[in-house]
Amino acid sequence: MKFYETEGFPNPIRVRVALAEKGLLDQVTVVPVDVMAGEHRQAAFLAKNPSGAVPALELDDGTVLAECTAITEYLDHASGEPTLTGSGARERGLIAMAQRRAEAGFLDAVAAYFHHATPGLGPELETYQNAEWGQREKARALETMAAIDGWLANHEFVAGDRFTVADITTHAGIVFGGFAKLEVPASCSNLRRWHEAVQTRPSLSA
Amino acid sequence: MKFYETEGFPNPIRVRVALAEKGLLDQVTVVPVDVMAGEHRQAAFLAKNPSGAVPALELDDGTVLAECTAITEYLDHASGEPTLTGSGARERGLIAMAQRRAEAGFLDAVAAYFHHATPGLGPELETYQNAEWGQREKARALETMAAIDGWLANHEFVAGDRFTVADITTHAGIVFGGFAKLEVPASCSNLRRWHEAVQTRPSLSA
Repeated sequence: MKFYETEGFPNPIRVRVALAEKGLLDQVTVVPVDVMAGEHRQAAFLAKNPSGAVPALELDDGTVLAECTAITEYLDHASGEPTLTGSGARERGLIAMAQRRAEAGFLDAVAAYFHHATPGLGPELETYQNAEWGQREKARALETMAAIDGWLANHEFVAGDRFTVADITTHAGIVFGGFAKLEVPASCSNLRRWHEAVQTRPSLSA
Repeated sequence: MKFYETEGFPNPIRVRVALAEKGLLDQVTVVPVDVMAGEHRQAAFLAKNPSGAVPALELDDGTVLAECTAITEYLDHASGEPTLTGSGARERGLIAMAQRRAEAGFLDAVAAYFHHATPGLGPELETYQNAEWGQREKARALETMAAIDGWLANHEFVAGDRFTVADITTHAGIVFGGFAKLEVPASCSNLRRWHEAVQTRPSLSA
């Protein structure tokens, strides 16, 4: 498999962590995509992923999967334990709910703040900005951090008692917050403690 | 199970269609939520779903699932065929990718256009509007309709050769387009033909 990655960027990190958690990192060939040089918007990459987004995963039969949740779904079913998306209807539903909330309310909101209300990736790549929208999404990100902090008062991981895709998405949100200079507030003590703890996992520095 | 629903609204429709496709409609008690009267923002509903969004599904053990993709994941694993999210790693990945693209690029984009650049649900419920953002998302919705039209040139359904959650999401996007007076353009002939065909499914009028 080929893993199209921009090193250190939040969304590629989601797939890298998933690969590491599943023990599959040595089964992919990493293909770097230079987003800062606009490589993701050039014909060669668009032929692989028409949406122009990194990461993407090219299977050995040539199928290209994009969208982090779809790639994770693939990896989670291509190999066995540990599962990142859960087992059984109820657990899978709860994990998907937490993942979606962390994604839409936190990671994607931080991304909108970064791309719209800060210099983002610079004037050549940020061809449209709506600063008011970015500020609105910053507020949403802070609200969601407070919500996730509340979940973490009740269980060790974001979606329950084990590490799942919802933890990966939340970690990526914090990484993106670093780009955007939007830190986890001190009031979110559970979220801070959780992040310190998960950072000791080998997958997060793989 | 209790199904918290606002009849005729696009996101609740996603779950209603999923329930009907799975043959589970007679196993839920429908609890109407009067969104136009702001019931989704009142304490009784927020105690069920803190995000205030409809639909939600309350399981018999009291667990409340929200977020359409999470509810669909639950329903799809709680009962057997037909599957809406696919079988096996590759198919599940492809369906999740199509679903996510239809959701973020079409349904959610139409929703943003409706809530921000049209009167939406009216001044009492639309407490923040960003018309420029709404117009931007309208353009994104049109781009995604063209993309889905291209997929439908190659296979009968949105994510391949059978009806899946990606078709449900796309259908909900077209329903939402009706609210927003944003129709499928005549240039999207595959998408129009597909929608005519799927509308004959009993689940879409269940």
